[in-house]
Amino acid sequence: MTATMRDAQLTGQMLIAGELVRGSGKEIRAFDPTAGHELEPAYPYGDASHVDAACAAAAAAFADYRATTSEQRARFLEAIADNIDAATDAIAARAVAESGLPQARLTGEVARTTGQLRLFADVLREGSWNGARIDPALPDRKPLPRPDIRQRSIPVGPVAVFGASNFPLAFSVAGGDTASALAAGCPVVVKAHDAHPGTSELVGRAIADAVAAADLPAGTFSLLYGYGPDLGVTLVTDPRIKAVGFTGSRSGGRALVAAAASRPEPIPVYAEMSSINPVFLLDGALESRGADLGRAFVNSLTLGSGQFCTNPGLVIAVDGPGLESFIAAARDAIAQTDATPMLTPAIAHAYAEGVKKFEADAELIVRGKESDSETTCRAALFATDVDHFLKSEALQSEVFGSSSLVVRCTNTAEMRAVADNIEGQLTASIHADESDYDEARQLLPLLELKAGRIIFDGWPTGVEVCHAMVHGGPSPATSDSRTTSVGARAIERFLRPVCYQNAPKSLLPSAIADGNPEHLWRRIDGRLQQD
Amino acid sequence: MTATMRDAQLTGQMLIAGELVRGSGKEIRAFDPTAGHELEPAYPYGDASHVDAACAAAAAAFADYRATTSEQRARFLEAIADNIDAATDAIAARAVAESGLPQARLTGEVARTTGQLRLFADVLREGSWNGARIDPALPDRKPLPRPDIRQRSIPVGPVAVFGASNFPLAFSVAGGDTASALAAGCPVVVKAHDAHPGTSELVGRAIADAVAAADLPAGTFSLLYGYGPDLGVTLVTDPRIKAVGFTGSRSGGRALVAAAASRPEPIPVYAEMSSINPVFLLDGALESRGADLGRAFVNSLTLGSGQFCTNPGLVIAVDGPGLESFIAAARDAIAQTDATPMLTPAIAHAYAEGVKKFEADAELIVRGKESDSETTCRAALFATDVDHFLKSEALQSEVFGSSSLVVRCTNTAEMRAVADNIEGQLTASIHADESDYDEARQLLPLLELKAGRIIFDGWPTGVEVCHAMVHGGPSPATSDSRTTSVGARAIERFLRPVCYQNAPKSLLPSAIADGNPEHLWRRIDGRLQQD
Repeated sequence: MTATMRDAQLTGQMLIAGELVRGSGKEIRAFDPTAGHELEPAYPYGDASHVDAACAAAAAAFADYRATTSEQRARFLEAIADNIDAATDAIAARAVAESGLPQARLTGEVARTTGQLRLFADVLREGSWNGARIDPALPDRKPLPRPDIRQRSIPVGPVAVFGASNFPLAFSVAGGDTASALAAGCPVVVKAHDAHPGTSELVGRAIADAVAAADLPAGTFSLLYGYGPDLGVTLVTDPRIKAVGFTGSRSGGRALVAAAASRPEPIPVYAEMSSINPVFLLDGALESRGADLGRAFVNSLTLGSGQFCTNPGLVIAVDGPGLESFIAAARDAIAQTDATPMLTPAIAHAYAEGVKKFEADAELIVRGKESDSETTCRAALFATDVDHFLKSEALQSEVFGSSSLVVRCTNTAEMRAVADNIEGQLTASIHADESDYDEARQLLPLLELKAGRIIFDGWPTGVEVCHAMVHGGPSPATSDSRTTSVGARAIERFLRPVCYQNAPKSLLPSAIADGNPEHLWRRIDGRLQQD
Repeated sequence: MTATMRDAQLTGQMLIAGELVRGSGKEIRAFDPTAGHELEPAYPYGDASHVDAACAAAAAAFADYRATTSEQRARFLEAIADNIDAATDAIAARAVAESGLPQARLTGEVARTTGQLRLFADVLREGSWNGARIDPALPDRKPLPRPDIRQRSIPVGPVAVFGASNFPLAFSVAGGDTASALAAGCPVVVKAHDAHPGTSELVGRAIADAVAAADLPAGTFSLLYGYGPDLGVTLVTDPRIKAVGFTGSRSGGRALVAAAASRPEPIPVYAEMSSINPVFLLDGALESRGADLGRAFVNSLTLGSGQFCTNPGLVIAVDGPGLESFIAAARDAIAQTDATPMLTPAIAHAYAEGVKKFEADAELIVRGKESDSETTCRAALFATDVDHFLKSEALQSEVFGSSSLVVRCTNTAEMRAVADNIEGQLTASIHADESDYDEARQLLPLLELKAGRIIFDGWPTGVEVCHAMVHGGPSPATSDSRTTSVGARAIERFLRPVCYQNAPKSLLPSAIADGNPEHLWRRIDGRLQQD
């Protein structure tokens, strides 16, 4: 690690296997959406030679890195977390400037990021990630003896991670994808998001410093800057990359999925893409607390200028006084909402275009306060009926920002029709009083098939980082509904099982060795035990 | 169930949601490769209308079928197994006629098939398939309370299964894909393989009878006949199908993967494709038992006319007296081997073409005995050196049948170079004496990255159906190296996780309900327990 890298001064350089490397392409700068100007330093894009260098280093690092113990990787993740914690002020300050998000949100996001790293340290120490299974030999079985067969999970290989614009920390350089891939034993090559290159550099250093301090192979981590459709695709199609983590737009995710599928050796892409997060308001709940729900809804809708993949973009309810109370309260709240900065001018532009399409296709209920700035988000609420909603592709599309649509139903069967006909989602929410539980019981199996997380009497924004979380869902919410990108099970995306038949005891990996030296939960003849 | 269906007489008809339906397309007949003639009855192909009917029935069945308990599905699988056992003689006799495989092999394969069904009954009763996780609420946590979050796995939806030619039972209508999908709670639509339509009809009836007897929705199971690139692709692109199981050729598997990826909602395809199953013979083992290894190798190579995806198609060893003993013994054994019938004329033709390519590109060591028949497999053994092998795409391709290639190395570094440069495989085998363990220790991490199963001092043919088996591997061996198509974990392919946030207790699925009514192993705050 060079002295420069410990310096708080940003260098504008990439980090390839522990070395600062200046890009040779187009120079980008972060944009401060609050101040309305660009930020120094310039970050020149890398090119194919940098991808090659990072992938070569990752491939070279893989054998040694995956041979580390769970405890060694747990300490490494904790060291990254410690380094990030120690630099919280500098990181959060730069992230505020680069994103326009509030200081408190970003300080919290630093904590969330280090919390994720520490969660995976816990997952590593608990050890079930090894997937240890042993079916002992049955030498006397007829008609044929059974050989000794033992299974464990191993890391897939170097992983490419794409930082997301809307979480400059928790879904970026040291975010959940990186943390879970490093936990699995996979070297990581990150393509930083253009929206926050300085934050990326600071966090990248925290990781590179931890790599060096733990005496791990330098290629365990690299950080590149570049244009997604160019450098990003080069990275995903590099034969040394074995899996991809991505959070972003549907078009971006689909492009990476297609690139990965076109490889001679196709690889999995875990793309978390678009979701409109339907919220079902049942009659009893609306009657007893329609106005409260309306106000709480607006809090969730306008949080972070609505720049969350879990933003509540769709509300479904039966028309009536309860829904009118909900809409009236939401209308009042939105009317008083100031326009707030969006992450980038491009996102603000896309939001304005998305709202225009809704204006042309649905009834406008209310807009938030106007603003002089073209890079702010002015909240919007629309309404339509079921027939029109189900026929309109535009109204079923995500508008990234604080825009939502109320679908007025004439009865609960229509609400179920919406549930049955929407695309895959990250979340679906149900607000229900006890009198609504019969209805909720009918809705639930429909929503289970559409979403990864079902929330009762709450709002979809706010994704808990824990063992039971599913931040995933059927296409197009993600490219792989069997997985989650948040929470403990995210590590499984970067593992694959291998079994060993009749292996000599001295050659067995310790996770499946006799005597259970790692004291793991193991499945012996299909039964869990820990002896 | 109609009376006709309980009759042993074959009808030549499809089975769509419990009804016999005659196809309207091209008529195919099975071919008896031993007798050299076609078998009655004719099986007319189905068309898009039959795919539509089967998928509509499967989609309609899904809600009720997935609502069955683990115990109900376990009994259903056992009833299928009982029905197949009861019809063993008729099924095995027809399979012998349709495949040319020996009676004993097919009687054994019936037992393997019913054993698989019973294994999944055991998996269902054990209950870990539910993936139950609970992170209890932390109402007093600062800065924000944690909501109650609970996760379980649910079935993905109707599954399309493609029967394989070479296992008319164990990888066909009631094979591992069907058994694991039904276990998961997914209705199944099978496209029968053209090579064994009568066997498929008999087994299909055994399943349909069990569906009726258990009073399950008729659409839980359907069986179609048709042309893969036509009816098969129609099936895979039907929006109601949510996953695909396939065992067959690389081109067939890739075509289904591409079709599934082109859908508006892409779905996972579990295609088990080609593998040449490298066998590494280390020096000590060759010196101490080269000739024995040569004879045992030929037994594995010629089993079932080499028509196994785990056939040992590649042998890697350092040149020397040990390898010469191995080759001499293999040469003698192969020279005395009769040509044996292959499953279909098309497979026999492809085998002959594949061997021709090897004759043009490698040194021929020996062929098995000649035969008058054009539909038999005449074993073949070739040799080449490392440089030529690594440069030749032809020599790295699978020849489906009893053909294998010895790669002569000048040292163990060259053996490792082969391990490092081959494509993904289902298996890799190492023959090693204790004196070879240091070498094996260097080879092992290379092979772990290339294969799903690593076998010591044994041969790849013979895939144990158990909890720890991995019958899978990196591309092109399969399309998804994170999974196995044999053994208990095959069920995971047809499940996806869903989490429930703050759900009312009365709405929680029993797998994650308070008090653990199903007495499952559950992960509470990340820790396994069963209370």
